[in-house]
Amino acid sequence: MEKIRAVLFGVGAIGSSIAKFLLEKEGVEIVGAIDIATDKIGKDLGEVLGIGKQLGVVISNDPKAVLCKACADIVVHTTSSYLKDVYSQIAPLAEYGVNVVSTCEELAYPYVSEPEFARKLDALGMKYGVTFLGTGINPGFLMDTLVIALTGVCQKVNRIKAERVMNAATRRVPFQKKIGAGLSVKEFDKRIKNKAVTGHVGLEQSLGMIAGALKWQLDKIGVDLPQPVIAMKNVASEAIRVKQGQVAGLKQCAHGSVGGEERITLDFQAYIGAKEEYDSVSIDGVPPVCQKISPCVHGDLATIAAIVNSIPKVINAPPGLVTMKDLPVPSAALEDMRKYV
Amino acid sequence: MEKIRAVLFGVGAIGSSIAKFLLEKEGVEIVGAIDIATDKIGKDLGEVLGIGKQLGVVISNDPKAVLCKACADIVVHTTSSYLKDVYSQIAPLAEYGVNVVSTCEELAYPYVSEPEFARKLDALGMKYGVTFLGTGINPGFLMDTLVIALTGVCQKVNRIKAERVMNAATRRVPFQKKIGAGLSVKEFDKRIKNKAVTGHVGLEQSLGMIAGALKWQLDKIGVDLPQPVIAMKNVASEAIRVKQGQVAGLKQCAHGSVGGEERITLDFQAYIGAKEEYDSVSIDGVPPVCQKISPCVHGDLATIAAIVNSIPKVINAPPGLVTMKDLPVPSAALEDMRKYV
Repeated sequence: MEKIRAVLFGVGAIGSSIAKFLLEKEGVEIVGAIDIATDKIGKDLGEVLGIGKQLGVVISNDPKAVLCKACADIVVHTTSSYLKDVYSQIAPLAEYGVNVVSTCEELAYPYVSEPEFARKLDALGMKYGVTFLGTGINPGFLMDTLVIALTGVCQKVNRIKAERVMNAATRRVPFQKKIGAGLSVKEFDKRIKNKAVTGHVGLEQSLGMIAGALKWQLDKIGVDLPQPVIAMKNVASEAIRVKQGQVAGLKQCAHGSVGGEERITLDFQAYIGAKEEYDSVSIDGVPPVCQKISPCVHGDLATIAAIVNSIPKVINAPPGLVTMKDLPVPSAALEDMRKYV
Repeated sequence: MEKIRAVLFGVGAIGSSIAKFLLEKEGVEIVGAIDIATDKIGKDLGEVLGIGKQLGVVISNDPKAVLCKACADIVVHTTSSYLKDVYSQIAPLAEYGVNVVSTCEELAYPYVSEPEFARKLDALGMKYGVTFLGTGINPGFLMDTLVIALTGVCQKVNRIKAERVMNAATRRVPFQKKIGAGLSVKEFDKRIKNKAVTGHVGLEQSLGMIAGALKWQLDKIGVDLPQPVIAMKNVASEAIRVKQGQVAGLKQCAHGSVGGEERITLDFQAYIGAKEEYDSVSIDGVPPVCQKISPCVHGDLATIAAIVNSIPKVINAPPGLVTMKDLPVPSAALEDMRKYV
């Protein structure tokens, strides 16, 4: 069997890490790379990755030209969180007969926020026999797939709560800035208003996926605006100092209710100085399930894993738009990637 | 859409609990019941369940007669842990066009211990367009499906350890007896030798399923004989007193190695007086994943849930023998069961 042929669509921080990981793996090869950054276009992928060797793959800003000659099995797409930005990038890929796995948060479960794009992607997938999947660690696993899997051992489920608490000091600096660490409360509020701080993208999607799996008809999905987490004392990461009273990061909740009663709560917290980092799922049900991953799963490492581990599952999946709840149980693709196809 | 038509094959402790649970649920009806116990044959299922009403379903010891007129969608099979005992019960069901979900532990992943039965069941399923699944809480979820799902966020997996620690005092008395609680060490050892105490059935299957999902070629699956857990002080359940120095229960491990190195360890402990009850999964990998469910998931309640929640997934599955790793992510079927088909 020939190696799995992958094209990168997006060679930013996550795209580059995925590329390096794919280069270590057997049974898969990178046969194309797409990016719009002018400092990357025309350069060899190896040079942009800084791995000290050429790969014979030149980064292009022309997806059609790349796909035409790539004969790719999968596009690994890592450009934006929002489906409205991403749709015009991924929809045209279908006619090249290539499957797509994407970090686009809204693609993880687009039926709630972007039903029209979801319908169109599903139709395109069906027409051309290809599969679209959005995944990652969150959305894609911790606050949806894992929660859903745990309900599988429950006879009754009254309420579900999932939490993710991260100490932002251990994460990339752009992430620390994105959550407002080091800002004054006033500046944080201003940035929330003008959407310069957006909070975590994916809560609505995770909540929708859980409800979709359980066939709960939610009367409301409410996603709160991000709230500042105020530093109670001076805290710092290597890059950012946060004085007592300043913003250390943010906290954001989402709520799903059925018949006026809150049944699903997602609670996302990321701030510098969080004492305990964890991911937890509590199911008030029969039997109850109280689950905790401690420390919390490392976001970037796990998103890269989730994307790459999904490649064989996307290739094996029926055509159309799929979400993590529709695919077989997630699993690591540790050996030659062709073994999983 | 018509209600899902279910036949019970086995009306023992677990079969009866499943029956009661199914009676509470919408969109499913019990249309037949099979058992070999002479005190049950010929009686109405409602009477045997002790629910104070007739159900119009007479328990029969003739599977063919039941299946012929049941037009069933699913057989819920709960008779034995061993596929050699179960094969002749479930194999003939295929020609009635009925799917089978079973608590038979060895059926959860029969490819390792019973490859010939596995091959034949798969062929029968394909021939008659029906699906066979073995599941439950363990094997079926805690030490296999959940472990596999957690590897989905890992780039590398060096070692996996899963533990289940149960305080047997909170379980059914037959379970407490099965694990040897209250015996002398000498008597325990004797019963291990003559196989009157068998330990936990399923470790080999769980280990095989993990390796199967990861495509690890194990050079060895070793399942230790059950070891007695000696009471360090007097302990007791409502039914059994265990004096200091007597057996409080058992501990059993299974080991899977690749290239001579142990990569998967499963550690099952059930004894009266266990201080902490938990289910844990530790993945030494990139990223590492340390997960714990505390207290441990209630075995009987969760097995009943896992079986019933699997019904729509088995009906939806492609024909043949399937295991939990092949099916979509587990999920609770809380609403009208027809919604999930």
